[in-house]
Amino acid sequence: MALIVQKFGGTSVGDPEKIKNVARRVLKKQKEGCQMVVVLSAMSGETNRLTDFALQMQDIPDTREMDVLLSSGEQVTISLFAMAVKAFGDDCISFLGDQVKIITDSSHTKARIESIDTERIIENLEAGKIVVVAGFQGVDEQGNITTLGRGGSDTTAVALAAALKADACEIFTDVEGVYTTDPNICDKAKKIDRISYDEMLELASLGAKVLDIRSVTFAKQYNVPIHVRSTFTDTEGTWIVEEDKEMEGRIVSGVTYNKNEARITISGVPDQPGIAAKIFTPISDADIIVDMIIQNQDTGNGLTDMTFTVLRSDFQRTKQLLETIVKKTGATGGIHGSDTITKISIVGVGMRNHSGIASTMFSVLSREGINISMISTSEIKVSCIIEEKYTELAVRTLHDAFELDKDTVPEEETLT
Amino acid sequence: MALIVQKFGGTSVGDPEKIKNVARRVLKKQKEGCQMVVVLSAMSGETNRLTDFALQMQDIPDTREMDVLLSSGEQVTISLFAMAVKAFGDDCISFLGDQVKIITDSSHTKARIESIDTERIIENLEAGKIVVVAGFQGVDEQGNITTLGRGGSDTTAVALAAALKADACEIFTDVEGVYTTDPNICDKAKKIDRISYDEMLELASLGAKVLDIRSVTFAKQYNVPIHVRSTFTDTEGTWIVEEDKEMEGRIVSGVTYNKNEARITISGVPDQPGIAAKIFTPISDADIIVDMIIQNQDTGNGLTDMTFTVLRSDFQRTKQLLETIVKKTGATGGIHGSDTITKISIVGVGMRNHSGIASTMFSVLSREGINISMISTSEIKVSCIIEEKYTELAVRTLHDAFELDKDTVPEEETLT
Repeated sequence: MALIVQKFGGTSVGDPEKIKNVARRVLKKQKEGCQMVVVLSAMSGETNRLTDFALQMQDIPDTREMDVLLSSGEQVTISLFAMAVKAFGDDCISFLGDQVKIITDSSHTKARIESIDTERIIENLEAGKIVVVAGFQGVDEQGNITTLGRGGSDTTAVALAAALKADACEIFTDVEGVYTTDPNICDKAKKIDRISYDEMLELASLGAKVLDIRSVTFAKQYNVPIHVRSTFTDTEGTWIVEEDKEMEGRIVSGVTYNKNEARITISGVPDQPGIAAKIFTPISDADIIVDMIIQNQDTGNGLTDMTFTVLRSDFQRTKQLLETIVKKTGATGGIHGSDTITKISIVGVGMRNHSGIASTMFSVLSREGINISMISTSEIKVSCIIEEKYTELAVRTLHDAFELDKDTVPEEETLT
Repeated sequence: MALIVQKFGGTSVGDPEKIKNVARRVLKKQKEGCQMVVVLSAMSGETNRLTDFALQMQDIPDTREMDVLLSSGEQVTISLFAMAVKAFGDDCISFLGDQVKIITDSSHTKARIESIDTERIIENLEAGKIVVVAGFQGVDEQGNITTLGRGGSDTTAVALAAALKADACEIFTDVEGVYTTDPNICDKAKKIDRISYDEMLELASLGAKVLDIRSVTFAKQYNVPIHVRSTFTDTEGTWIVEEDKEMEGRIVSGVTYNKNEARITISGVPDQPGIAAKIFTPISDADIIVDMIIQNQDTGNGLTDMTFTVLRSDFQRTKQLLETIVKKTGATGGIHGSDTITKISIVGVGMRNHSGIASTMFSVLSREGINISMISTSEIKVSCIIEEKYTELAVRTLHDAFELDKDTVPEEETLT
């Protein structure tokens, strides 16, 4: 008998009627002969309502108490869900994080799951019950309630699927799956049927909208097949699974973009050993996260340029910090930068076996008159920094150039 | 150092501003040199909101899941309270029922406390923290969440006070204490300064409005002094304590009434052994609670009358049930009754040492032309059934007759 973990987010359980619909959906799957474990988030809006209360209490709410507060949200949805199942004549039992010993570390508001005791869940599944577990929450060794941070219910679902060795973890959301690119700016965007864990991780900025990215890391580690799909239709969504031959046949799986970064260049930096550390240690000490770093070859005069990107919200702060740093390094060319850039990326495991993908990307952008100011590559990704205003054009052009709207490989059997 | 348990109900913690006020009040007491344990209910209205949700799920909500649902309410108030204390610069830690092992039986929605583990509470008090505990909730031996029923937070507070050997348990509410009678119908009603556990139990119908009566039983058992007082003023309320000499000097402590009963008479019942069992066994089997029972002396013809009271909501059902029962007993006089009656009672430990109290009551009522249809007495109480329309007149007349508006004994030192 297949064991399926299904996770429904806040909009799927936003009111009593919606919770009943979720119960119907779960029961339908159970009737097909599956053992069902359900993970629920709090009702949509509830976390904001509670956070508002907290902010009326304390400017920076105590994190231990914040976790006690926020974890009440799923307590409401899981008990209502269990009642709904029972009203339909079936049996169901709800468990809070601490009741199935979802043990985490003690990092309140962003805890990490360390272990799960599946005994009580299995016992109840074997008794024919649907088991519903509160997402997002756990308990530390001392018995304090913890929460896993935004999107934490996805992590709960994947962790439970891993611990229970479930056949699949289905994440229900308000979109139909993961797309080749953002459908809002490219109407040729196509739902991806199957994608590897690594590609999904690289597509973070697309994926984060439908799926918490930490849960993908977790799924990869324990090889849990994830099925991202819509709460509102019965159509298949996107399966996130281990890489296979079929995927390698597809060179590029998706085009993604990130408007959340800013670029900073320090020019005329003395090309000496230790110079990078002198610049980046104080930045790191100020809790500023640096993404891409590029250092040009010394052009002959003993000077070099250093370019890097930071979060757009850290742009001004980073520039101010650099004023003093740069003086100490003896850089002569000053600090330049832009906070109207976009990082545009193509992702695909097929790149490993195909050459010329990056140069195709550069040519395509160049043909449209789009200048590339930085380039960074990984084994399965090429990212370029371009001016923000070209974002939509670049996405559409790359989507066309790599024929992402076409089925490049024959459809194989899906996992269900 | 005195250890005080303070309990605040739903109206006292009804919104973030009110929770801050409660925090200020608790801190003030702590600054006087007390160790503070605080018990909170859910915000007023929250239990109704959640119950409404549950009724949309299931006609008769599953009781285990109902407890999961309802216990989320206090989780919100205790965490917000802890944040408020911390915002004022002091330290505080919140605990749910299961975190301080408030172990109950498994009677969901009306569980009874079996034990409390005070170790974590004491540890945190000794570290100088205010400890706030969720009222109303516990956990059974299997780790299922339970709730103690309406008014359960009072019971939590008293049980904690007992387990911690606290110096006092203060119950904050929206009235100033327990009154000699209902101030709404008798403007001479006077706040009682001190009253014994037994009197309080007999004054149930007055007391239930300010204090859950099960908690008084508990307090009596463990000799926990309870102080019922107003959230909104600093004045002393009513102390509910062990009986002492001073109380005995007061003959009548309070006048109470109950409009919630109905009277039924079966006349012409054959006066045979076993007749009472024949009548009351089927009534009890139908879950109808009988309060007073009076059987008249056989008047010489081998027949007797049987009169008793039931809850007014059970009146019609009881009469229907009796139709068949009465035929079997061979009663000849038929069934009569009234659901417009009131049970009016005078209560006082002083009655033990004073004679003539009952007859004074009868005379007083008679002088006003109020007919008494049933009488029942205990060691410290006399109850009479009268017509409902005389309720207010009877209350005021008895209150005057026993001079409840006067200080009959000199005020002694209070316990604080």
